[in-house]
Amino acid sequence: MRILVANANTTEAITAICAASARAAAAPGTEIIPATPRFGPAVISTRAENVVAGHALLELLAGHAGRVDAVLLAVSHDTALDAARQMMPCPVVAMTEAACLTACTLGGRFGLATMGSTASYRELIADRHGLGARLSGLLGIASTPQDAVRDPARVEAELAVAIAGLVEQGADAVVLGGAALAGMAPRLQPCVTVPLLDGIACGVKLLEGLVALGLPKPGVGSYAAPKGRVVTGIDPALAGVLAGR
Amino acid sequence: MRILVANANTTEAITAICAASARAAAAPGTEIIPATPRFGPAVISTRAENVVAGHALLELLAGHAGRVDAVLLAVSHDTALDAARQMMPCPVVAMTEAACLTACTLGGRFGLATMGSTASYRELIADRHGLGARLSGLLGIASTPQDAVRDPARVEAELAVAIAGLVEQGADAVVLGGAALAGMAPRLQPCVTVPLLDGIACGVKLLEGLVALGLPKPGVGSYAAPKGRVVTGIDPALAGVLAGR
Amino acid sequence: MRILVANANTTEAITAICAASARAAAAPGTEIIPATPRFGPAVISTRAENVVAGHALLELLAGHAGRVDAVLLAVSHDTALDAARQMMPCPVVAMTEAACLTACTLGGRFGLATMGSTASYRELIADRHGLGARLSGLLGIASTPQDAVRDPARVEAELAVAIAGLVEQGADAVVLGGAALAGMAPRLQPCVTVPLLDGIACGVKLLEGLVALGLPKPGVGSYAAPKGRVVTGIDPALAGVLAGR
Amino acid sequence: MRILVANANTTEAITAICAASARAAAAPGTEIIPATPRFGPAVISTRAENVVAGHALLELLAGHAGRVDAVLLAVSHDTALDAARQMMPCPVVAMTEAACLTACTLGGRFGLATMGSTASYRELIADRHGLGARLSGLLGIASTPQDAVRDPARVEAELAVAIAGLVEQGADAVVLGGAALAGMAPRLQPCVTVPLLDGIACGVKLLEGLVALGLPKPGVGSYAAPKGRVVTGIDPALAGVLAGR
Amino acid sequence: MRILVANANTTEAITAICAASARAAAAPGTEIIPATPRFGPAVISTRAENVVAGHALLELLAGHAGRVDAVLLAVSHDTALDAARQMMPCPVVAMTEAACLTACTLGGRFGLATMGSTASYRELIADRHGLGARLSGLLGIASTPQDAVRDPARVEAELAVAIAGLVEQGADAVVLGGAALAGMAPRLQPCVTVPLLDGIACGVKLLEGLVALGLPKPGVGSYAAPKGRVVTGIDPALAGVLAGR
Amino acid sequence: MRILVANANTTEAITAICAASARAAAAPGTEIIPATPRFGPAVISTRAENVVAGHALLELLAGHAGRVDAVLLAVSHDTALDAARQMMPCPVVAMTEAACLTACTLGGRFGLATMGSTASYRELIADRHGLGARLSGLLGIASTPQDAVRDPARVEAELAVAIAGLVEQGADAVVLGGAALAGMAPRLQPCVTVPLLDGIACGVKLLEGLVALGLPKPGVGSYAAPKGRVVTGIDPALAGVLAGR
Repeated sequence: MRILVANANTTEAITAICAASARAAAAPGTEIIPATPRFGPAVISTRAENVVAGHALLELLAGHAGRVDAVLLAVSHDTALDAARQMMPCPVVAMTEAACLTACTLGGRFGLATMGSTASYRELIADRHGLGARLSGLLGIASTPQDAVRDPARVEAELAVAIAGLVEQGADAVVLGGAALAGMAPRLQPCVTVPLLDGIACGVKLLEGLVALGLPKPGVGSYAAPKGRVVTGIDPALAGVLAGR
Repeated sequence: MRILVANANTTEAITAICAASARAAAAPGTEIIPATPRFGPAVISTRAENVVAGHALLELLAGHAGRVDAVLLAVSHDTALDAARQMMPCPVVAMTEAACLTACTLGGRFGLATMGSTASYRELIADRHGLGARLSGLLGIASTPQDAVRDPARVEAELAVAIAGLVEQGADAVVLGGAALAGMAPRLQPCVTVPLLDGIACGVKLLEGLVALGLPKPGVGSYAAPKGRVVTGIDPALAGVLAGR
Repeated sequence: MRILVANANTTEAITAICAASARAAAAPGTEIIPATPRFGPAVISTRAENVVAGHALLELLAGHAGRVDAVLLAVSHDTALDAARQMMPCPVVAMTEAACLTACTLGGRFGLATMGSTASYRELIADRHGLGARLSGLLGIASTPQDAVRDPARVEAELAVAIAGLVEQGADAVVLGGAALAGMAPRLQPCVTVPLLDGIACGVKLLEGLVALGLPKPGVGSYAAPKGRVVTGIDPALAGVLAGR
Repeated sequence: MRILVANANTTEAITAICAASARAAAAPGTEIIPATPRFGPAVISTRAENVVAGHALLELLAGHAGRVDAVLLAVSHDTALDAARQMMPCPVVAMTEAACLTACTLGGRFGLATMGSTASYRELIADRHGLGARLSGLLGIASTPQDAVRDPARVEAELAVAIAGLVEQGADAVVLGGAALAGMAPRLQPCVTVPLLDGIACGVKLLEGLVALGLPKPGVGSYAAPKGRVVTGIDPALAGVLAGR
Repeated sequence: MRILVANANTTEAITAICAASARAAAAPGTEIIPATPRFGPAVISTRAENVVAGHALLELLAGHAGRVDAVLLAVSHDTALDAARQMMPCPVVAMTEAACLTACTLGGRFGLATMGSTASYRELIADRHGLGARLSGLLGIASTPQDAVRDPARVEAELAVAIAGLVEQGADAVVLGGAALAGMAPRLQPCVTVPLLDGIACGVKLLEGLVALGLPKPGVGSYAAPKGRVVTGIDPALAGVLAGR
Repeated sequence: MRILVANANTTEAITAICAASARAAAAPGTEIIPATPRFGPAVISTRAENVVAGHALLELLAGHAGRVDAVLLAVSHDTALDAARQMMPCPVVAMTEAACLTACTLGGRFGLATMGSTASYRELIADRHGLGARLSGLLGIASTPQDAVRDPARVEAELAVAIAGLVEQGADAVVLGGAALAGMAPRLQPCVTVPLLDGIACGVKLLEGLVALGLPKPGVGSYAAPKGRVVTGIDPALAGVLAGR
């Protein structure tokens, strides 16, 4: 089974972190194919960057359409998830979505700890994924993804404090939000009292299950595959997928 | 990996159907252990029966605590799910929950088709699982579980009509509600335009993923393992688990 | 009028406290019949215990079916309420439900003060009773039901602080959550600025009103009386009620 | 115990119907005091009339402040309920509120059948009373309150059809919306399969219970009694109550 | 274009403040017509006063029906908004409504800062306007409208602190709640980091737009103009409008 | 005042229709600047096209940043609205958003009539704009945007039927969804009983008001202007705006 692990920013180092986390979670026989977009933001930290990254991500996916068995969006904003799911012929899961759905199987409500602002995660989880009733709270630490690279120990200590705060608010499990945190869960887990969810690991397991189930795509409605769409001025592979070729 | 497939009614034939569906979905190396409660309703079709079945199910699970790697509740009411999840030392997933969470990864909203009344499924999915924003509608056909045994072709035809109605209402995927429908999805799938979710198959895949992730139980809060609870007049194994022995 | 005051744990002392509170609230001509289950948890403080207690409670009720005019569930988790309501031929109200509905008639939003964790009360009030829009907040004090027996003055002082906090958050009234707190409201009332609701007292008044209204049970749907259900391995009286005998 | 049954329109005949229904429900020892406003709409059927009726109702209540033990708002729009509750020194309940809260104790969800438009009832029950999760649907028949006087048999037949429709949509109980329908429930009940709620009867029983509970008013917040308010150009008794005299 | 700026309390000074703020916002060619009710509360600070003010406001509006192009309710409780909208032949907007809708165009969520209790604003914005998903929080400062007249600098300083708190909670914009704060936004704006909304200014701009759009009133439903309503004992002009004369 | 009317698809004819509708609504002194993206879908009718169009739209807007006073997104999916609002130094409103907010000032609930599927409009209005409580329903007619060009009379007749259906479901006003319907409202209005909202006209009026209010952008949070963002491989003007140059 081949799973495309598609970053939505252009930072190869983040792709590599996610790919490593994916490989650690993958079953024997699952091949992880990392991929990085041709253009777009180095790091997605604003709404406008997220829109540009959406296009870049679809272009990236179109280049792999039909050549992978499943796609994991390795971007914690779950950028362009609904579009990717509609467009691709195989299962598509995004990392924060995967962590949240998995958290639902562990207890009543989950929290999310991340670096920086939590506004976009609240919108993502409550408004787009419709999981607001299962979300106990969100906390952002002051550190940046750059800090996570430079001084991981400090970032881990700050996260442990945030996680304890989320538990205090009623979280039975905590999602780590941010591709830069991929792979950190095992190191943090011993310091906290509830299970920590790594979106990359959760996504790999969900996708392995989905591929095994072998379910068809919806044939009607807004998630049916595109057909005959005319889109100009874009990458030929993406235009081809949208045209249904 | 050993997955307990625990029915909550006392009808062995339903246990057998679920076990067969589970085995069909299981990965190589996954062993399916079917189990049927010692007491309780032959079929759960009222609220009161569901309460009795909850106790019967916990007793059944307690007898396997520590001897299986995961538990799949093979009862479409997801009977006593939160209690089982709290009590058992391993991952626990219920069949309707599993189908709904999987449906979330396939499109925007899902419907549910079942036999008989839909009231308890609406409460289960919207109020208890908090997935109301993802639920497009529910439809119940007039046939009974007994009919599904006697005249499966007619029941499948009725279900196909109901599923088409759910698609008309906006469903991108449809959950089949009812343990008696376990294993029917592959036969119905060619007749409908959206993916059909079998809770047993979905549950097996989710559990295989959860076991592989190796996450700890919550150590605090209302899903932490019971310890020192004093419960009298019940099965010694169940009393022992509640006491934390 | 005969009102069964049914505890769901096996601690006779709690039954006695609730019965006393019920008698204090009862109109002349209302007889209070206290009852304690044959088996189950000494105190319900985990999800699994609540499931076992549900069965024990239904068995207890079945033994009184047709011999009482109304049933008050004297358990603050409103254990098995929907099942009891479906099964019994007379009105059934649970203590936290009764307090919350009564609180709705006193102001805009109410809070809940209890001992220990508030997670199950939030689920009960918001998800199961559908009263989340009327709930301003929940606060749990550190003391246990045992403390309430040993050092009631300290527990009352802690509760007064919690109630003041709930008022600060916007509560116009406060529900006391926990059967062990039955009867405490009159003593605490002078120390606080909003009305305190005792679920036992509220339940008795609601039931006296319901009995007087003389409404029929629903004849269809998921609250219609059970008929012809086959349940094995349980108390004959309960089996009989489920069979519709 | 003296319960003021306060109509909010100026039609004495409606006051009389409500008073009769209240007397039929009242316990021995409960005195029903009917009252009709000095000014305002003959029948409230628009939003603007409801606002005028609110003032008329408060004026009416102020004239009885301190001289009754409880107030039942005999107007199905629950006109000025929050204001009346804040202003009066005794318990205040409104008829649709009372029916809805009582319906909550009979099953899972209730419907509402009325004459004419249902928009204001949906807003009242879902948005103002916060009971949307318990509301299964609303249906309005074409007949008017005048028809209910002229040809009650036809109106009852139309209502029976509407109630059957609500049951089909999942109602376990049905509230009759409209003061003009007060007293009709006993005649309709034999024709339908779920309990019918008469707001006047329900309100009397809730108020008898509230008076017996003897709870204080909130002393703080937006339901605390008015004090020192300066309001000019209005009835002196109402001005006096608002001034806290 | 003539816009009626209708206060709902009887304090001419508040009318004057609102009129000044409206004139500052008005386009050339927009005439502001200030108006104060004949009777009612000096300041609306309780639920009961709000009901009386609703009647007074409708009487005031009826006197201008057909003689103005639009109505701005210059009362932060948006008193009787739905009734005024139904009754008047021209567009009607209320000041808090206007500020909230405008805030929706500036970011994701907005907060509200006011003097005193926030309970009625939460009900107004979340329950009546249905904008709860866009509301990040509410904060009330201890100062009163009288303080705002006596010591505006102190009130502004307190408000700046409250606004900073709302921003901390996630507000992208802040509504100033209270007619007494009309005109204060420009002075406060330099001290805060998010846009401040003055309901009077927002309302004037919305109304200018609505008048230019020239949309008809709803001809059916609960916002259609009243016709043939019989209301006695009230101002003849108001009775005339309700009668559809 | 210069308002950019930015289409998000590449069909110049749609841009022209929207510009004409905008000019018809504009006040004297408002200049309408039509603009069409350099690349992207000819018509947006799938989720994936909407993502590509988002990037194309941001590129288009960046080319006008600082040179227009306001931006109207002339695309009924409100494509990339939050990103455009964050990125641009001036007010940004989208056409469906504008119609919905305006509809909120006309009655209680509004419906939406469109061509084709309604799923994305429901998500847009309920989940992203948070206006679900104000939405009474959505209806899509079978005709396509191409039909609207070829046989406008038939499309208008179908829309009139759909609008009547929405009114039946409780709509007080109806939004016309789809840029291809811009300018159709005046012709349809005489055939229907509730006000029809044209998003382009509504958007122009909202923007004229916002520009006149002169509010600052949020200086903090997720709608603050981008600064120092590094985005490669994209249009230099867009990269410059994201860098804060």
